[in-house]
Amino acid sequence: TTSTRMERDTMGELPVPSNAYYGVQTARAIENFPISSLRIPRAMIRAMGLIKRAAASVNHSLKLLDKKPADAIVRAATEVVEGRLDAEFPVDIFQTGSGTSTNMNTNEVISNRATELLGGARGSKLVHPNDHVNLGQSSNDVVPTAIHIAASETIQRQLIPALTRLHKALNGKAREFDKIVKIGRTHLQDATPVRLGQEFGGYARQIELGIARMKRAQAALSEVALGGTAVGTGLNCHPKFAGKVMAIISKETGCAFKEAVDHFEGQSAQDSLVEASGELRTLAVSLMKIANDIRWLGSGPRCGLGEINLPETQPGSSIMPGKVNPVIAESVTMVCAQVIGNDVTITVGGQAANFELIVMLPVMAYNLLQSIELLATASTNFAVKCIEGIKANEERCKSLIEESLAMCTALAPVIGYEAAAKLAKDAYKSGKTVREVAREQNVLPEKRLTQLLDPWRMTQAGGPVGSAGG
Amino acid sequence: TTSTRMERDTMGELPVPSNAYYGVQTARAIENFPISSLRIPRAMIRAMGLIKRAAASVNHSLKLLDKKPADAIVRAATEVVEGRLDAEFPVDIFQTGSGTSTNMNTNEVISNRATELLGGARGSKLVHPNDHVNLGQSSNDVVPTAIHIAASETIQRQLIPALTRLHKALNGKAREFDKIVKIGRTHLQDATPVRLGQEFGGYARQIELGIARMKRAQAALSEVALGGTAVGTGLNCHPKFAGKVMAIISKETGCAFKEAVDHFEGQSAQDSLVEASGELRTLAVSLMKIANDIRWLGSGPRCGLGEINLPETQPGSSIMPGKVNPVIAESVTMVCAQVIGNDVTITVGGQAANFELIVMLPVMAYNLLQSIELLATASTNFAVKCIEGIKANEERCKSLIEESLAMCTALAPVIGYEAAAKLAKDAYKSGKTVREVAREQNVLPEKRLTQLLDPWRMTQAGGPVGSAGG
Ligand SMILES: O=C(O)/C=C/C(=O)O
Ligand SMILES: O=C(O)/C=C/C(=O)O
Repeated sequence: TTSTRMERDTMGELPVPSNAYYGVQTARAIENFPISSLRIPRAMIRAMGLIKRAAASVNHSLKLLDKKPADAIVRAATEVVEGRLDAEFPVDIFQTGSGTSTNMNTNEVISNRATELLGGARGSKLVHPNDHVNLGQSSNDVVPTAIHIAASETIQRQLIPALTRLHKALNGKAREFDKIVKIGRTHLQDATPVRLGQEFGGYARQIELGIARMKRAQAALSEVALGGTAVGTGLNCHPKFAGKVMAIISKETGCAFKEAVDHFEGQSAQDSLVEASGELRTLAVSLMKIANDIRWLGSGPRCGLGEINLPETQPGSSIMPGKVNPVIAESVTMVCAQVIGNDVTITVGGQAANFELIVMLPVMAYNLLQSIELLATASTNFAVKCIEGIKANEERCKSLIEESLAMCTALAPVIGYEAAAKLAKDAYKSGKTVREVAREQNVLPEKRLTQLLDPWRMTQAGGPVGSAGG
Repeated sequence: TTSTRMERDTMGELPVPSNAYYGVQTARAIENFPISSLRIPRAMIRAMGLIKRAAASVNHSLKLLDKKPADAIVRAATEVVEGRLDAEFPVDIFQTGSGTSTNMNTNEVISNRATELLGGARGSKLVHPNDHVNLGQSSNDVVPTAIHIAASETIQRQLIPALTRLHKALNGKAREFDKIVKIGRTHLQDATPVRLGQEFGGYARQIELGIARMKRAQAALSEVALGGTAVGTGLNCHPKFAGKVMAIISKETGCAFKEAVDHFEGQSAQDSLVEASGELRTLAVSLMKIANDIRWLGSGPRCGLGEINLPETQPGSSIMPGKVNPVIAESVTMVCAQVIGNDVTITVGGQAANFELIVMLPVMAYNLLQSIELLATASTNFAVKCIEGIKANEERCKSLIEESLAMCTALAPVIGYEAAAKLAKDAYKSGKTVREVAREQNVLPEKRLTQLLDPWRMTQAGGPVGSAGG
């Protein structure tokens, strides 16, 4: 029983809620796509607003649009950019594959708000959704352009800062733990010693490379379809339009965008989104490795590896009192699983491109933006609530190394592989350490033995043989 | 500036909004997991409520819980089941991998509501979240059980009815189009004729098999972890508890659940969810094929295959006036892409199981339930807004067949493969039909030719040679 106004499009009449800024085509899309509760993400609505705003200014500067409607569109689009009209975007993600419903939704909202600003009535199309707001544009160039803008901006504003923080946290631990020697592990079996700081340094470098990968993802997103209009030919669009619009948006977002080198590539496919998602998936794989290593290094507290202690964040169990779990790391691994799945959705979307237009755009946008946002929030949370509070269990690290049979590796260059292997077997059988057995069997003078069996030296390139000449 | 109450758990004190039914552990989880806007789906909250309600009755019947708290829990859990307390479940999907935060969230909400029903104050734990609501349970058996219940019930109540409707629609078209002969296509190249009804009959059978697959998915979900408590041994749980609880829930949901044959399998892994997701993915692949065929069969309206006409649902384009697109089918294909990606997330989750517990449960639950719900809404929408309104373009079907070179295939058994191929080549070069060339070259008497070149007969098993003996 909300009051409605009647609106008409090329298909006939439909009622629209009187107080809605959106119009008949949005109403039709609401009816047509009752599929999910997933809606166009904020970052994408913002990007649509950025395009419509810059388009109006540029169309005016090219003398294609009068000053009055242009100014009104700029003001209305600014409200879209700022998120003040988000509730006016009710269309499902699972809609037309070009995102036409979302482009028309944006055109209608801006048209009605601009019309109102000029004193007209909603639905009167004083500022027209197609002729004015969509001037020189098609969903087919606007929607992919908006996805590129939204993704690149979210990488810039959310993901890279989050990764920078995580990198700093890991690097800090790499320095803090640089003196702590511990057993290395390969194939889950004891290997020669490493420093805990070296392990964390490796993680830090993974994230540093992750930041570089995010910049490559942004590069993949930098060419945009705008200017191609319906099929890439640019019909009904001024040749200078896209270049000028993207110059404005590059300035506003701080991300570099340019018109596609080839507009047919730019909108008939979205390999760029597939590539960007591949970079995100790579980052997810890095985070999965780091989060899992940290879960295992902290396993225990009594009956696991127990080489590090994670900060306690909440009671772990509803049934086991006092148990504490690595829940922050677990939430990171679940985010990684989501991103790896999202990448497949984007890949399935990408390979479904036909002729002049790929019609999988909204689902690709949703999954890509979700991946970016999840990786950002999870990385920050991982840094703040887990990594920064990790403490090394130095005693445990020390005692495990001394017990390890891999110590014999440092003797091999001096006494030979087979003699060293025999030492390890003897130690294993007798329950003694390699050092003890080597001493008993007098394999080397005590001073040389101490030199060679120094775990710290084993963690340096070339050591200990190379560094033990003295 | 909302007023708060102080609550305490084993980790210390934390403020909780005074009017919240949830408690300190939920508040901690809100703080710990600021990752996404994704929340535990309704179907899963309902399932948690079903478990807690039946658990209280059964614990009372086993004399483990007094009547007063048991009755209060039953009443409070009923409100959870019915969705009246959904706003009290604010914990992120990307949380602890066991879903402990959601189990404790449920325990706290029911504890506080039950306490209130008995005249106590929220936070007083008159009905205790762990000792009473969680009695005989652990997150580790409750959460996977709730996922099985939620998924199976949603398949039963939403997906199977939707598929039944879609099957009926396709079957109806199979009958309606049974007289319409059209060109068959393999490798996208013209092949021998089929009836449009046969094509739709194939689609209908795919969906019929899809329904059978959904029943297999339900079968995969029928064994539940409940009764295993923390690690599968059932510590702190009455041996009759799980059997009795699941008997109640089977009755309430109309889905058959039983206690896991092996509780270690039941909660140390979730192969069952991976299997169910595999069935959903198979359905997505069926729908992708059907939706794409229908997009192509309806391509045009002037310059495509144009063998069918889809119902018009909205103006197609923001720039091309009068264009109409197969948007309902496109939204189906996007749902399929999502489901195929979700399946990968569930697979990544499934293969990350360690020892007594798989810690990827919430993300697996979210993706599985999303797949079920999307497939249900998309299938209904596909049936109602697309399939049911499809009209055949009989003239077009007829004329394409007569022009097709594949007609010569029916002559091959009589005149030989090579002679028939020559006919086809001659027809191709001259721009004439196979019939015309065959007549000109007098390859067979007119009557026999008409018999053999009857496209209708070619669509029947064995025809036309087998059926043209007369
Ligand atoms: O929440 C539980 O019941 C158990 C969790 C755990 O195994 O740590
Ligand atoms: O919405 C458009 O601008 C175009 C859609 C289409 O290509 O049909």
